[in-house]
Parts: sequence; C-alpha cells; structure tokens
Amino acid sequence: MTFSDESSLNEECGVFGIWGHREAARLTYFGLRALQHRGQEGAGIVANNHGVLKGHRGLGLVSQVFKQEAQLERLRGEAAIGHVRYATAGTSSVDNVQPLLFRFADESVGLAHNGNLTNAYSLRKKLESQGGIFHSDSDTEILMHLIRRSHRDTFEEQLKEALNTVHGGFAYILLTKDAMYAALDPNGFRPLAMGKTASGAIVIASETCALDTVGAEFIRDIKPGELVVVNDDGYRVEHFTWDTQPAICSMEFIYFARPDSNIAGVNVHAARKSMGARLAEEAPVDADMVIGVPNSSISAASGYAEASGLPNELGLVKNQYVARTFIQPTQELREQGVRMKLSPVRGVIAGKRVVMVDDSIVRGTTCRRIVSLLKEAGAAEVHVRIASPPLKYPCFYGIDIQKREELIAGNHTVDEIRQIIGADSLEYLSEEGLVDAIGLGLDAPYQGLCMAYFNGDYPTPLYDYEEEYRKSLANSAV
Amino acid sequence: MTFSDESSLNEECGVFGIWGHREAARLTYFGLRALQHRGQEGAGIVANNHGVLKGHRGLGLVSQVFKQEAQLERLRGEAAIGHVRYATAGTSSVDNVQPLLFRFADESVGLAHNGNLTNAYSLRKKLESQGGIFHSDSDTEILMHLIRRSHRDTFEEQLKEALNTVHGGFAYILLTKDAMYAALDPNGFRPLAMGKTASGAIVIASETCALDTVGAEFIRDIKPGELVVVNDDGYRVEHFTWDTQPAICSMEFIYFARPDSNIAGVNVHAARKSMGARLAEEAPVDADMVIGVPNSSISAASGYAEASGLPNELGLVKNQYVARTFIQPTQELREQGVRMKLSPVRGVIAGKRVVMVDDSIVRGTTCRRIVSLLKEAGAAEVHVRIASPPLKYPCFYGIDIQKREELIAGNHTVDEIRQIIGADSLEYLSEEGLVDAIGLGLDAPYQGLCMAYFNGDYPTPLYDYEEEYRKSLANSAV
Amino acid sequence: MTFSDESSLNEECGVFGIWGHREAARLTYFGLRALQHRGQEGAGIVANNHGVLKGHRGLGLVSQVFKQEAQLERLRGEAAIGHVRYATAGTSSVDNVQPLLFRFADESVGLAHNGNLTNAYSLRKKLESQGGIFHSDSDTEILMHLIRRSHRDTFEEQLKEALNTVHGGFAYILLTKDAMYAALDPNGFRPLAMGKTASGAIVIASETCALDTVGAEFIRDIKPGELVVVNDDGYRVEHFTWDTQPAICSMEFIYFARPDSNIAGVNVHAARKSMGARLAEEAPVDADMVIGVPNSSISAASGYAEASGLPNELGLVKNQYVARTFIQPTQELREQGVRMKLSPVRGVIAGKRVVMVDDSIVRGTTCRRIVSLLKEAGAAEVHVRIASPPLKYPCFYGIDIQKREELIAGNHTVDEIRQIIGADSLEYLSEEGLVDAIGLGLDAPYQGLCMAYFNGDYPTPLYDYEEEYRKSLANSAV
Amino acid sequence: MTFSDESSLNEECGVFGIWGHREAARLTYFGLRALQHRGQEGAGIVANNHGVLKGHRGLGLVSQVFKQEAQLERLRGEAAIGHVRYATAGTSSVDNVQPLLFRFADESVGLAHNGNLTNAYSLRKKLESQGGIFHSDSDTEILMHLIRRSHRDTFEEQLKEALNTVHGGFAYILLTKDAMYAALDPNGFRPLAMGKTASGAIVIASETCALDTVGAEFIRDIKPGELVVVNDDGYRVEHFTWDTQPAICSMEFIYFARPDSNIAGVNVHAARKSMGARLAEEAPVDADMVIGVPNSSISAASGYAEASGLPNELGLVKNQYVARTFIQPTQELREQGVRMKLSPVRGVIAGKRVVMVDDSIVRGTTCRRIVSLLKEAGAAEVHVRIASPPLKYPCFYGIDIQKREELIAGNHTVDEIRQIIGADSLEYLSEEGLVDAIGLGLDAPYQGLCMAYFNGDYPTPLYDYEEEYRKSLANSAV
Repeated sequence: MTFSDESSLNEECGVFGIWGHREAARLTYFGLRALQHRGQEGAGIVANNHGVLKGHRGLGLVSQVFKQEAQLERLRGEAAIGHVRYATAGTSSVDNVQPLLFRFADESVGLAHNGNLTNAYSLRKKLESQGGIFHSDSDTEILMHLIRRSHRDTFEEQLKEALNTVHGGFAYILLTKDAMYAALDPNGFRPLAMGKTASGAIVIASETCALDTVGAEFIRDIKPGELVVVNDDGYRVEHFTWDTQPAICSMEFIYFARPDSNIAGVNVHAARKSMGARLAEEAPVDADMVIGVPNSSISAASGYAEASGLPNELGLVKNQYVARTFIQPTQELREQGVRMKLSPVRGVIAGKRVVMVDDSIVRGTTCRRIVSLLKEAGAAEVHVRIASPPLKYPCFYGIDIQKREELIAGNHTVDEIRQIIGADSLEYLSEEGLVDAIGLGLDAPYQGLCMAYFNGDYPTPLYDYEEEYRKSLANSAV
Repeated sequence: MTFSDESSLNEECGVFGIWGHREAARLTYFGLRALQHRGQEGAGIVANNHGVLKGHRGLGLVSQVFKQEAQLERLRGEAAIGHVRYATAGTSSVDNVQPLLFRFADESVGLAHNGNLTNAYSLRKKLESQGGIFHSDSDTEILMHLIRRSHRDTFEEQLKEALNTVHGGFAYILLTKDAMYAALDPNGFRPLAMGKTASGAIVIASETCALDTVGAEFIRDIKPGELVVVNDDGYRVEHFTWDTQPAICSMEFIYFARPDSNIAGVNVHAARKSMGARLAEEAPVDADMVIGVPNSSISAASGYAEASGLPNELGLVKNQYVARTFIQPTQELREQGVRMKLSPVRGVIAGKRVVMVDDSIVRGTTCRRIVSLLKEAGAAEVHVRIASPPLKYPCFYGIDIQKREELIAGNHTVDEIRQIIGADSLEYLSEEGLVDAIGLGLDAPYQGLCMAYFNGDYPTPLYDYEEEYRKSLANSAV
Repeated sequence: MTFSDESSLNEECGVFGIWGHREAARLTYFGLRALQHRGQEGAGIVANNHGVLKGHRGLGLVSQVFKQEAQLERLRGEAAIGHVRYATAGTSSVDNVQPLLFRFADESVGLAHNGNLTNAYSLRKKLESQGGIFHSDSDTEILMHLIRRSHRDTFEEQLKEALNTVHGGFAYILLTKDAMYAALDPNGFRPLAMGKTASGAIVIASETCALDTVGAEFIRDIKPGELVVVNDDGYRVEHFTWDTQPAICSMEFIYFARPDSNIAGVNVHAARKSMGARLAEEAPVDADMVIGVPNSSISAASGYAEASGLPNELGLVKNQYVARTFIQPTQELREQGVRMKLSPVRGVIAGKRVVMVDDSIVRGTTCRRIVSLLKEAGAAEVHVRIASPPLKYPCFYGIDIQKREELIAGNHTVDEIRQIIGADSLEYLSEEGLVDAIGLGLDAPYQGLCMAYFNGDYPTPLYDYEEEYRKSLANSAV
Repeated sequence: MTFSDESSLNEECGVFGIWGHREAARLTYFGLRALQHRGQEGAGIVANNHGVLKGHRGLGLVSQVFKQEAQLERLRGEAAIGHVRYATAGTSSVDNVQPLLFRFADESVGLAHNGNLTNAYSLRKKLESQGGIFHSDSDTEILMHLIRRSHRDTFEEQLKEALNTVHGGFAYILLTKDAMYAALDPNGFRPLAMGKTASGAIVIASETCALDTVGAEFIRDIKPGELVVVNDDGYRVEHFTWDTQPAICSMEFIYFARPDSNIAGVNVHAARKSMGARLAEEAPVDADMVIGVPNSSISAASGYAEASGLPNELGLVKNQYVARTFIQPTQELREQGVRMKLSPVRGVIAGKRVVMVDDSIVRGTTCRRIVSLLKEAGAAEVHVRIASPPLKYPCFYGIDIQKREELIAGNHTVDEIRQIIGADSLEYLSEEGLVDAIGLGLDAPYQGLCMAYFNGDYPTPLYDYEEEYRKSLANSAV
C-alpha cells in the first residue's frame, strides 16, 4: 500500500509516557514524532508538574501541534504522557484529540488510549442512563467514567475494576499526580513496550522505535492483562486479569509498525523480509526484476528478491515532498496522466517483466493505479505478489476497516481481483506462510497472532459488533 | 548524504516552462512539485494570459507558496514558467525568489535561472556604474539588464547577445507575451529537457521526472549553446554559440537528480547502481550486509550488494515526517542519545559487519553521526564505501560549495577521514570508475562529465572567482 | 475606562440564538459580531440541521474563529445558538469555549451561558462524588448534569428543575433537535431580549443591538424567572419560578452594554448621558472644557458638557488600529514617553482647565496614566469626574472582579484616590444619582438595579462565596 | 465618510524616519502604528546598523507585518526609516511595499515615498529606453534611477538634481549608511514634520501624532522645496529649489490626518470643529439634534452642535471589532436588513429631526446608506450637512481619486445629490468657509491650501495627466 488516500488502512493511535525525567514533555514530543506514522490527525501531551497536570493538544502532525518552544515550556514537570491520533474524516474535532485531561475537585487524570472497545456502545448507553455525560465521540472516556463510579478504595483498584469491564483491544496510559499507569488488553492486540533512559526514567511506548528515539533502553514488552504502575519508587507489574491469550495484531507486522521496531521480540523489518522470502517460495514467477511499492513494501520486496535471485530494483520513486495540498489536477489533467506522489522509473522498467511486491490490498484502487503506472512506463508484464493473505474480514480491535463491503477480497476471488487491478498474475502469501514468517512462537493459536482479517477467527466475542458483523457476512458475495 | 542540515550539498534551482496548454499554471505547479528536491526555499510561477504576464511567488515549498486554488486561478493563460529555489540562510528574502517578472512600458518578461555565473560580479559592477539598479542579491537579473541594453533589433537577437556575455553555468527559461525561450550554457553543466503533452503543449524542465509528472513525452535534451524558441508555431532550435564542449555536472548523477530522471540519455538510478557495483569491484570487503544511507544512496547500495553478493538490508530508517521544527532536543538530551530523522534498525545490525554505502562525504559530520549510530546499535564493524571520488574542490557553476576549507577531503587524507568518522575502513570510488559507471560516452574529456570537484579540472576560466580559488588552494592543507 | 488591559472590568459573555431561518448560522455569526464587545477570547456556534446538531468553536474573535465560508456552510440548518466568551488569562483553553455540545445516545444538546453561579463549587463537588465528569473549568456544564440526573419526564421539566437548583446570575440558551430554550435567573442580572425577523424567525440575544444587526424587530425582554420555549409552533413563555425580584446589573448601563442597546426599555446611551448630566449637577467645576475617555465615556461626557454648558472636546484620540501585538516598547522607551492606544490632542488641551469624564475607576492605574497624559500635553488643571459611584465590592453574578483588594475604592478614600491618580479634583456620581439617571422605575429596591458593587447590598445569598467575601471585607482597609 | 469600502478616499502613504537612537527600528514600528490610518495595505522598515542596511516589509497592517520580536531584532542599528502603504486592489504585491532597499556595490539606499508624481510615466519611459529596469508598479523607484544617473559628485547633489526632475506631490525619506534625508515637493502638498527625542535623536514623520507617540518634541515642519539632511552631526536644512508656493492638501484637514496632529501649526481637530461651526452658520436647520458620522466627522459635528446650540448626540455606533472578514451577508440577508459596522441608536433617533454631519461625499453610496439607516431607525427628518465643499475634480498629488466620473458632485447638482442620498435637505460648506475655518494664513492662494478637488484650480502643470484630465472634464456632466 502507498498513497495516504481513501483506500489505505489506518491505525487508530500511538501512545507514549515517561516518568522521572526533568524534560518529560520534550522527550514525549520526540517520542510522539517517532510514532507519527500511527496517527497524523491530532496529537497532545499532558504533563505532571509536582502534582499539577497541564495539557496541550491540537489537530495535525506533532510538529504542527507543537510549533513553539513556549508550548512545551508550559508543560513542565517530571512526568508526561502523549498521544498521536488517526481520525476518520468528519469527526476531526479537537475534542477527540488525546490525551484527555480530567480535572476533579480531588484529583486530575490524563488518559491516552490506543485500540477499540467492542462493548463501548452498550457501556456508554448504560452510563448515560445513569446521568453520565460524554464529551467526545471516541470510546476513550468510558474508562474514566468506570473508574469514577467504582466503589473500590484506591485509584489502582478502581482502575483494575474498570479494565475488567471494558472489552476489545486497548493499550492505555494514564497519568495522575502520583503515578503513571499502562495497561494492555487480555489479548495484547496492540504493542506496548517499556524502557529506561540512562538517567533512570521509565518510558512506555506503542513501539520500540520511540524508545530508541529518546535514547531509552528496552526493558520488556507489556504483556496481555498486565497493569504496570510507575512512580518515584520505580515500576511494578500488576495484573488486572490472568485470563489472557496472546493475539497480536498481524497487521502491525505487515503494515503499521515501523521497520526498526521490535514486537514481542521480533524485528518488523526482518519479519517483512521473511514474508517476502516465503512469498517467493510459495509464488515464484519467471521475471526480470522485483519492485517494491514504497515505503511499506520495501522490506518484503528485498526478501522476495533475495529468495528468488532476481534483482531488486528501484522502479517506483515516492515524491518525498508530498504535503497535503488543496491544489489537485483537474479530472481532465488526471486523464492526461498528470500525477503526483509515485513515479515509475521508465529507464528501469521499460520492456521488463516485473514482479511488483506489495504488503496488502484493501480496496484495490491503489494497486490498480500502480499496475497501470508500471504498464504505461513500458513494463512487459506485471506480476503482483502480496506479502500477506487476502483481507476479507473487518477488524474490531483498533484498525479502521469495519465494513466487509469495502474489502475487495471480501467480495471477489483472487482471479477477479487480478482482472480488476490489471495484473498479469496475482498471488497472496498463505496464512500458514505468514504465521511461519513472523514466527512469534507463542503458545497460542497462530503462534500468538490475530489472523481474524484473513479468516474471521476472532479471538474474543464481538459484543456490540456481533449483529453488524453477521449482517456484513450475509451481504457480501464471496 | 542524508539530513537536510548544514553539511549537505545544495542545488541552486529547478526550472519549468510550458507553452500551449489551457492549464499552463496548474501543470507548472505539478512540474515544480516534481522538481521540489532541487530547491525548497522558495517557488514561483509567471503565467502569460493573452499577452498579459502575472506572477506569484513566495518563500517555502511549492505547496506552501500555492496554498489556494485562487492563487492558481489568478495565473490563467496558455503559457507559464516556474522556479524552485535553494537559498543560503540569511538572504532568504522573497525578493530573490524567481521567476523574476519585469514590466516595461513596451513589454513584460518572466525570467527563471538555474546555475551560477562566473562573471556576475564584474558584470553587475559595470552595469551599476552605468546607472543600472538591481533589486535582488542573485545574479539572475544581470541577463535582463544585458538584454535591455543590447542595441540589436529583436528580443531574440538581444537575448543571444546577452547569453554570449554571461559566463559560467546557466539554464534559463524566459517568458514574453509572444514566446518562451530556453537556453543552456556552452558546457551544459545543468540538465534541461524538452517534452510534449498529448495535447501538443511544449514543456521544458530541469529534469525528465517533471515531464513524466505532467504526462509529457520526452523529445530531446537541450544541448550546450542552444537557444530553444517556443511559440504558437511550435519549437525551433537556435544556437547562441557553437563554441561548446559538454561538461555535465557529475553531482547530478551522484546526488542531486531524482532517480527516475534521465540525463543525456542515462537513467540516474541505473547510473547510481553502476557506481555501487563498480565500487564493490574496486573496494570489496568481507562483511555480513550492505546498508545504504536513505534516501540518496539506496541505488548505489543495491548495486554494491548485487555485485558483492552480500544481502542488502534496511538498516537505517528515515522518519518520513521530518517537518521543519523549532523544537529541538537540548544539548543534554542530544548527549543522552535523543535523535530524530534517522534510526538504525537494531534487530538487523546488532553483531553484524556492515558495509555502509553513501553517495559522498562533504564535511564528514553527518557520516560520523551515522557510523556512530550504527555502532551504538551494535554493529561489529562499519566499513564505509563512498560511491564517488573525494570532494576536494569548490563548484562555481551552481552547487553551493564554494569554499575548499569546508570540504573534509580538501584538507585530509582518506585515512585521516576514516579516523574522523570512526569507520573500520573507508574507500572511495575512483575517478575512472565514476566516469565508466555513468558512461555518458560523449566526445569530450571524461566522456562529457564535469569532474572539477574531484580534481580541480575546471572546463572554463573562473573569471571573478579566480583569485578566491587560488587563495583557497593556498590555505588548504592536502 | 479604556485600554483593554489588566485594570479593566470584563464581562463574561454574550449569547445569541435563532429558530426558524434558512441561514440560521450565518445570522448567528452576525449577531455574535454585534455582541463581540461582551467577550473576545472565544466564540462558537451550534446549529440544528433537521435534528442533527453540529458545532464549531475556537479561541479569538468571531471573525478569527469563523474565517472561511466552509466553516459556516458545515453549520447548515434552521436553528442555531452562539456564544462569545471572555476568559481570564491562563485558562484560555478551547475546552471552555461555548456553546458546549453534548451528544447522548438519545439526544444532543447545545448550551450557552452568560453569568456566574454562586453555588457552582458545591454543586460540582456533589456531582463528582456521584461519578459525574466535567470537561471544562467553567460552571456551564453543571446545568447539563442536573438535567440528565433529573427524574422528571420531559426535557422541559428536567430543565425547569435544574434551573431551580442553580443559583446566581445566569442567562442560558439551549438548543435541542426540537426546540430552543432561553432562561433568565430570578433577579434578571444579565440582559436578554427577544425579537422576530421579517421572515418570522425568533431571535434571542444578550443585547438588542444584536437584534438590530440581524434585522430583527424587538418583541420583549426575557424577564426574571422566565423560560422561553421556541419551536416550530412559535414561542411560549413559561416560568421556572415565580419567586423573582429584578436586580439588573448597573454595570451594563455604566460600561458593558453597547450604547445602541436598550435594556428594560432604557437606551444605554441615553442613560449614560443622563448620568453625565446628573454628575454635572452634583459635582460642577470651573473649567474650560469637558473631555471624555474614549470610547466608553463619550456619552457621559456629552451629558456633562451639555448640562454644564462647557464645550465637549475631543481631547483624547484612541488609535483605531490597536491590534494585539507581541511587540512592546521596552521599559526604557516607556519611560521616554513612547506609547500607543491613547493620544492627547495637545493643540486642544494645552493651557486649559479640563474636566475629564470617565465611567468608572477599577484599580486606578489607567486613570492615573490618562491624567498624566493630559498634564504632559499641557493641561493646566485636570478635574476627574466619574459617572458612577465608587466600586467597592466584588460581583458574584458574572463580572470579573471578585477580589475587593483589587478595587482602589475598596481600600482608599476618595481623596486618597485623587492623590494617587494625580488629579486636581475627583468626584463620583452618587448612588441616588445613578439610580435616578438610569430611571428603570421598577417596583424593587433601587428601581430594579443591582447596586452591590457600590454598597455591598447583594440581592441574593452568596452561597459558596460567602466565606471568601467575609474574609475580603476583613482584609480591606476602608 | 465611514466604512472602509469602495467609496472612500484613500491616502497613499505615511513615512517615518529616525536617526541616532539605539532602538531606531522599534521606535519606527511605533511611529508607523501611529500613522497606520494613512495606509493599511503594507508596511516596512529599513534600518542602518553601522553602515549595513537591512529591511523587512510585507502586506497588511504594521502589527501583521511585524509579528515577532525577532523581526525587529534583525533590524538593529541607530537609524531607521519606515513606510505604511495604501494600494489599490489587484496590484497588492509585496514588490510595491516600501521602503524600497537598493543595494549597489558601492552603497545601499532605503527609500520611502508619500505622494504622486505627475511626470512619472514619461520619466519611466525615458529611463527604460536607456536600459533602466523597474521592479515595482509604483513611481517610487524613479527617484533612485535619477540619482544613479546623475553625474554630480556627492549623493546629496545627485539627490538634489533628481528632486528637481520629478514633479507633483512628494514627501521622501531616504536612508544611506551616512545620513537620513527628507525632502518635500515645492508646493508642500503632503505634511512632513520633524522632532527630537529626549535623548537627542532626530525624528521625521508624516504627522505630528507619530512624533508624540514616540515621545519626540516637535521642532518644525519641513517646508516646500526643503531637503533636510540628518547625520551624526545633527540636522541641516538645505533647499533643492527656492521656487516654491505652499498648497497644502486640504483633504488632510478634512479627512485624512489624525485629529491630534498639527499641520502647519493648525490642530486638525480644531480645524474640523471650526469647519463644523462655520457650516452651522452657513447652513442652519431647525432640528432636534446633531449626529456625526463616526469616526472622521465627530469633530465637525461637535463644532456644528456648539455653534447651533443643538445637542450633539451619539446616534450612530461604529462596531469596534470590524476586522476584515470573508464571511458576508448574502444578498437576501442584506435586503432583510442584516448589517455590520455602523448601527443607529434607535432610542436616540426615533421621532427626531436629525442633522447628520459628514466630512465629505465621494460617490454618495455610503451617505445614502447612512441616511437610510437613520430613517429606518425612526428619524423624522434627516438633514445632511457636509463640512467641506463638493468634491468635483480629481487629485494628482497623492490621493486616490483620479477619475472625475467617480465623484458624485462632478456629475450632479447638489439637489440631485440630495435626492440620490434620500436626505430632507443637503448643504455643503463653502470654499471660502473652508479656507477661513482652517485659517492657515500663509501668503499664497487660499491661504496656502490646495483647493483643486473643489474648483479645479491646480497649483502646478499636470504633465502626464493633462490629457486624461481634459477628457475627464469633457465626459462629465455638470
């Protein structure tokens, strides 16, 4: 996949937190920049300055939300949490940008959330019927309401109770005047890692690349069902539940995570390269070269090339200055071939049989455009190889595809897709191939991966989505 | 090279022009975006609407200067020229942003320039002593003064006279109410290509990638000493001089040009890959993997890897959201390892012997940082291989290195440089290797390449720079 | 008073609502601009489009928050409410900008509030102890929580119950999918008027000037204890309480309201002129001219001049381009007399005995500066006449002076103040004079005015402020 | 006149300069803000730092062009000149914003100009035919070309020669590394005053209000034909010509200048008040009150009121937050009476016979709107009194009315105008009345005023405008 357009998948967030550093907010800023690929719609930071919590958040990239030194300087203090957010168009209101900062007469709480709750709708309805008022559209506030309504004695106990009430995929980071808390759902759908800076500050982040960016050394991944409590005494690992079973989102390995991150001990670049290599074994082709779709498929393409012995060529160049722009080619110009973002390298492609490696196909629109670009540039044949199995089922744990109707593979056979995108051949990596290539090796189905988008094997009940999902199955064709 | 920081080389411009299209300014906008890598400090467009010339220009990226449809709509007309500009800090005034638009009682002229004149200072001094007034710091205005002072009859003849008065490196595009003119200096230092859209409009651009972007088919390169005149009758190739000798800037192949561009018939990506392959032959090393410095050295690294049989790994990840930011790590944080922009992939590098391929070394600062990043990430050995010869001499034809003192290879031996950057070994591509790898095959010294930065063999007299250059030689050590 | 600086009084808001117009949001925009003087820190609009509520709000002036047509076009629909907000520095977060928009599973509610609740703190504390979560610092949300916790059957009944629970000064406008509601506290501290456009739409606004701006004809003022319900059947006046006693804020007449507004049937300009005339009778002076402090004291000065027979001169000019600016004179320049905003007209003042008429004195800082300006410009004598009684007591109903310590007249005698400001004489309007000049003629103490700032005679219990107020009395000197 | 819309007159500039102050640029900033009423389209400052000239300029208000401390800090140095500019729509390019900064090999010159040259076109044509290149549309550059082409020995002599070549209205301020120069045309059309700060710095400004703002004491007006040279030795008054005759622009007194400024020893507010008083004598009316059109007619209205014995009422309120806005009432709303900017005070006007005093009528559009506003607000009668004679002829010396066709009084009789604007009666001040009321008392026609807009009696030949003017006379009706 390429193009940040209608047809790509979207992660729902990245979270970052640090406790015990004089420049906590500044480090959070750099950590969020490292996580920017996980969400570009909004960003925010809440800092704890000797027990007083202050926040700043806004729409846009981290560098747009935090433009001036003064904005960081206001956020003084030795602890901070931050968030980058993806939002579907239309609801892009600053109200939904996190971390949320709740002020009560007796305490203040900062809250950042990555994931999606499967029982959010019913919980919200119930809380509203009891007089609860919600201010954002997101499901993040629910946790705070549950905490405040708990009758347990301490904040930590209230939080544990609340974590057992919400279901689905979640990686939470909370900040109070006394402590920072990080919690991961019982399946560990989303990655969450912990590290330590040279000066001893504890850092928690969605991906290890953010630990690296702030110079923190990796300690351990947060595991399913864990609640990590960080305060001036260091960190302490608690469990809000022992009823866990790992089902790490396979799309993190395939597409979302940065190649320099490690998840559950597996390097993302290495995993992608293995997928490419396995794909070469499963679906070889007699061709002149391999071309990866930049940037996400570069690793898989190199794996395919090495395993197949074909040269790996830079056949597609991504324009590195693709800012958002309001100026677009008119329809007429578009037909005349005016384009931006991705350019084929004619000198390399012309007359050649090309294996085009991509990480996945969502709606097929982008893939069709790229095949067409390659053909226009003179490719003799274009063989598309996808380094993951066909995407057929929606995700309810934090990735933005909730309609089966939108997934081309949910409605068409592989050969139909091949025709739609105009490729000379099309093959996908097998499910088994994916599981083996990532090689998590955990004692759980699929070695601990969530494979639901490929085979509908959801590791949890779907709660509020159950009905919608059934309807979706009934409506779709394949 | 990577990091857009103090130590990189800077191109001085990109130019684009189109004649005969109803959406001339819009196509120029897209063309300039394709040339954005040639200059990010300013951009502008001048359009010709039935003989009336209007312009818009500003500081920043093309997408920042043209933010609203209304700005393009003002620039109606069937012809337009555009410019992207690099500027050294301090003189970044909008006065210097091109195209310049001159309005006279009898005519208006738009002027865009890529290059550097070697006799600018003396020409300007002379013109001022005759009452001439200059409004910008750049040397671009000089051509206009020369044209206006010519006593020849037609604009075309005046222009030819002026083109014979200026010396150095220049690719000019001019727009009048009647025609568009493109001219290239007698050595053809800078690339300049011509194409045609499906609808018949003539397009001229610094690189062929801009032709591709606007859907124009390549016709031919503009050759040294040529003046191409484009008007409603089509295009006509004139010569302002026959005293020419090709000396195409080798840094265009090594670093500046986009990999999907072709210069003098040679694809840039292919040339870089050949340089890498030749480097592997000239300077092999017993190692575990090849790592290219993104983005400019990816092609050379893949050439090195293929030729050497070593795997080509994604060992360095470039943060794709590196906006300009005013928020920087403090010195203290920097020492603690907080960094942005480039991240090593620990999982790939740790414990491995790495061949790090880069396109060139200017001051050495960036190279030293990257070697250090790789070592911190656990590389057992780091062998640096540079896919071009040592940069020892300044360029006076349009690249922003005019002081020999700033070039590390102008002052240190290869072994000294190796120690400074902390590499286990360091080798450069030979001059001969470079010339062969690019393989222009023109009937001129170095097959038609300018190799002056490597060996001081300037293809023209240096005029106003002569004295400065001599001093520079005397001061430097090696 | 002049200068929008630290020493001026600040209104807390203006509200506007319209039901039954195809361009409801656009009219709200113009209505808010007419109310801009009541709050410059933030603005927002919530519109009802066939039952779907959407909102837009932001920090800054109305014209800054709504910069583009597109922002209004999103707010389609036949009903809308709006708000302009004053905020004390430091809490200027967009979270506090109104109207608040609450989305529930079963309904959505827009809420705008002008005023200050006296039992907000205790209500909030109670609601939080019951699990309620607040998102802003303002006391506006409280009403929504009370509505949602009411067990009555209809929204209207729930709202009535809530209106009987909150105390202090409030003018609320609410918008639901079915109706618009406007309510005024039992003392009617804040003004609130209703009108009708030619096309039949019902308009409610803080001041009649906003009715005029949108071309609506005045119908009636909303009266203390009333709840007006507007829907597609027209409007209906209900009462949430009959236990009312008018106590209209006298500062609205003295300083806040626009001179072209009418409050309780009294024109604000005419009232100010009467105050000036009465002041001339109570405190005559042998002088050459009257000078009003622009802009708020122009009316009072003209009344004083007419009554005294002295010429009314333009002796002080206000710079009409006083934008907020980050560039300030340095301390040194300030001492050298560099100034902005207000300039004395030397040619008029020099050598003359001046009566300087101002509407009020808060801290005295501004008054001292103006006296000093006039003296520097050559005034022979400066006699200060204040067209209201000394401000001695804080307001708890919606004006931003809550500390007696900050009021110069709360701590100094009139003669001390005269010395501090450097005037040759200083006199204030009497309380009786103020009441007579405004001449509301209502059957209530002070003819229906709230005079608490002058004499501490608060028309209601102070609830949560009681203790603070007692302390404040004990600490102050006079 | 009111509304900053199409129908108002526009000044062409304000200039400011200071020599000998450590914070020269900052004082220039404050001086320009005091002159902001003379031009709102652009602003700039050029500063001299030990002989090095730097500048900053941009489109918009002074406070928009200089937004950050850093922008002023770049402009260090002990001398600076500045400019505020009015520009007709369409040519609002930053290229035309002044001061212009010319850099030559041997010197740099900053140049600011207020006025209009009558022989600009022919001079420019001649200079271009000699190879001269102009970069802006304004006529300001011409002076620089003339200076550079002069063969005299010193800059001062070259400047004197140039000043004798340009004709029309001009007040120039120039800055070189050695001195600041101020020159006024032989008729002194534009005001220009000199003062001194407490610390001894010399200040020159278009109006004395700018001297007051920076704490400078008035020394003298610059007189027609004078060239003042300011350098480290103090100031020296030279003459570039003795062939002078004062003809100060009467519109400065009527409309443009700030009321707190003095021109040729006459206070502007006092002059306006006298015009109003004289108008009351010449054109009395039986009415209930006088209402001035804010802000420019407030002084004249007060003069009329005092002389007539009628009360002076605040019958029209100007919205003080009239920012430029892109959001406008639709045509439909406009017809429904939706309006901004100016509001009638119903409570004051209803049922009353009103004398509406305005300073002038240009096209009549605005005047008609205000009469209509007053009638809608219930005025029984509206008698319009204009405190200046009918505007019938264009100005060629620096005011933006160059077409007689646009002036209502150039094409209609007074009674026709009365009917067009819908007034019950209309009278203008007589020419004699204007001259007497201002009372300059200089030994020149009209006591030293330029009255050409009223009677076509231009004090100089019209040069390039001669033909246009004749045509204009022929085309117009009256």
